[in-house]
Amino acid sequence: MINIAILGYGTVGSGVYEVIGTNADSIKRKAGKQIVVKKILDLRDFDDHPQKELFTKNYDEILSDNEIEIVVETIGGLEPAYRFTKSALLAGKSVVTSNKELVAAHGTELLGIAREQNVNYLFEASVGGGIPIIRPLNGCLAANEITEIFGILNGTTNYILTKMIKDGISFETALAQAQEKGYAERNPAADVEGHDACRKICILASLAFGKAVDSSVIHTEGITNITLDDVKAAEALGYVIKLIGYTKSEEDKVICRVSPMLVPNDNPLSGVEDVFNAIMVRGNQVGDVMFYGRGAGKLPTASAVVADVIDIVKGSDNKNFIWESSDKDYIDDYKKAEIAMFVRASGTDEASVKALFGDKTVVLNKTELCFITPADTEENLVKKLSMLDGEVITTIRVMQD
Amino acid sequence: MINIAILGYGTVGSGVYEVIGTNADSIKRKAGKQIVVKKILDLRDFDDHPQKELFTKNYDEILSDNEIEIVVETIGGLEPAYRFTKSALLAGKSVVTSNKELVAAHGTELLGIAREQNVNYLFEASVGGGIPIIRPLNGCLAANEITEIFGILNGTTNYILTKMIKDGISFETALAQAQEKGYAERNPAADVEGHDACRKICILASLAFGKAVDSSVIHTEGITNITLDDVKAAEALGYVIKLIGYTKSEEDKVICRVSPMLVPNDNPLSGVEDVFNAIMVRGNQVGDVMFYGRGAGKLPTASAVVADVIDIVKGSDNKNFIWESSDKDYIDDYKKAEIAMFVRASGTDEASVKALFGDKTVVLNKTELCFITPADTEENLVKKLSMLDGEVITTIRVMQD
Repeated sequence: MINIAILGYGTVGSGVYEVIGTNADSIKRKAGKQIVVKKILDLRDFDDHPQKELFTKNYDEILSDNEIEIVVETIGGLEPAYRFTKSALLAGKSVVTSNKELVAAHGTELLGIAREQNVNYLFEASVGGGIPIIRPLNGCLAANEITEIFGILNGTTNYILTKMIKDGISFETALAQAQEKGYAERNPAADVEGHDACRKICILASLAFGKAVDSSVIHTEGITNITLDDVKAAEALGYVIKLIGYTKSEEDKVICRVSPMLVPNDNPLSGVEDVFNAIMVRGNQVGDVMFYGRGAGKLPTASAVVADVIDIVKGSDNKNFIWESSDKDYIDDYKKAEIAMFVRASGTDEASVKALFGDKTVVLNKTELCFITPADTEENLVKKLSMLDGEVITTIRVMQD
Repeated sequence: MINIAILGYGTVGSGVYEVIGTNADSIKRKAGKQIVVKKILDLRDFDDHPQKELFTKNYDEILSDNEIEIVVETIGGLEPAYRFTKSALLAGKSVVTSNKELVAAHGTELLGIAREQNVNYLFEASVGGGIPIIRPLNGCLAANEITEIFGILNGTTNYILTKMIKDGISFETALAQAQEKGYAERNPAADVEGHDACRKICILASLAFGKAVDSSVIHTEGITNITLDDVKAAEALGYVIKLIGYTKSEEDKVICRVSPMLVPNDNPLSGVEDVFNAIMVRGNQVGDVMFYGRGAGKLPTASAVVADVIDIVKGSDNKNFIWESSDKDYIDDYKKAEIAMFVRASGTDEASVKALFGDKTVVLNKTELCFITPADTEENLVKKLSMLDGEVITTIRVMQD
């Protein structure tokens, strides 16, 4: 038997409690021991809960309980999650979390403390909800050097973009629908402005390349400026627009950015719809491998948390779940990375666009056309586009094959 | 430092040698030790090999070498792979393999021996080539009870079907192209008749549900009877034809079968093209999770083998990679499973089809129509179809949402 505590009885925390109950037998078989929730920390009252005696509002009760070996942190946000996590690790308890904000901001320090204390700090649920991605990156793909990771890391924005594409509705209408369905928060900024996806791609980049990628310095664009006209123009060229977290390792630097991208219709990411997530990992031996599933939601996320708990109970070696700190030079200027651009422009003509950017140009209507530039650095493309007659309405990066 | 031996220096075996060389530094970092190939067993001569001194034709040299702790079996087929694997395990060496035929046929026994000897028998590369699937099934998804697994498990047949669909060429022409490209063997039976996919779905079913699923008793249909007319009729209804390995756990029995299926265009498996594989796993908490990548090929497969080697070197706990033997009753009659059928029929009319099977009917031409039945047991569907006027040309199972 092993005792755990759950910090925060919200969506994910209550899901962890539920998963441990529902699958108790198979979890016991796989972990080799029964996993028992001994305490739950939450500031709210849960007097109607069938195990109301588990609840406490005092974290010290958990911290000082030597029978509690694993702490599940599902509070979210930076504080008090950071303080609670740090003190649990220092007290020799392993911590499992779904808190991407905390891992992105303080992962380097917390993983370092875990290593010193010879305990685990695991966070499979922090990226891709229930999709296995953290462990496969370090385990099943361990014979590879990972060169690139890119994917759809935020379900809310993918739902909104899918609605815009399929139903031909505006961003604002699609956002309102997502809020109605509970897929978007009342304040949707963290999702629609790309910050959530940014934290996730930074966690993946840190883990895959071994050095911290600080999410606060990463170029991040959301989807708030994407219009129905962009969606339709992209469609005319054979693409769909997705919010993509992208990272690439090159020599001793890393490129990382979050932005809308045009994904070609024959790329597997193009078919990832609604609230689903998908993460493509490129290894130097295996080529492209993709992981797909529900990137959020109570039970999927909780099942990833519980899988981490099982792994700790089994005594698995997680020494590789660590990354070094890095200096500012480690993050390369994204404007120096090669990229192709999708451009919508007015007041210009097909001949002059083709003269500057080649053949892939579609005339949309009397006043407007759209085209995709050849790949070049962003810097150069911006310069070149400034030479175009007329007005550039939109530029969106294009995913290459 | 840890010494390994490679049995069989064919495509995968030489790939293992290459991956260990190419990524030596990162592998050492992840495994914590340098991995050294000490011996290679092959009956052929490799006098031009830069390390020709590693080669031997005598297996006893490897078996009796106490410095060799891990044996990589990439011979393929049943013999001598079975004999070599068994004796290595009995000698206290761990074995890593890509040999799906051997795992499917003798996995129960070999895993049992490995457990008794307190060594590992790992086979990540036996299903899906370089795609992480075996370990995520037992690790990252450990908090789930797996209910169903289905997917595209054979790259050769998927290449052939993709060519038929995209280029409108016949099975025979597509097969010839696959052979030209080296994607299909000169004798393509194991692939096109579904046996390869069958071994793989049986390995996944055995592992996920904990009891051996004997591939020799599983209903297996290949793609040799799929015609261009089938492909086009499926398209008219919004589907593509894929060869699908399918398994479902129900109470104390398991359903397992390999057959062509109509996959709806909005299902992520429909977009899996060419030699790519994709495996959908349905868990009772996480819902659907999909794993996608190159299901074969020298380096992808080799990278999965080496990942297993790294895992053993790290001392990970693989006690769960085991399944019990099962009796014949464990495999349920596939004809009793509920399924919808796609039917092409001639000599009948829309009204009588709709009267029997409902509305989803498309008239293809003057003499022929196609439709999809409501879900029912296969037994019942066959009976019902026999009541239809005219001739049933084709029946193909349909994947439900």
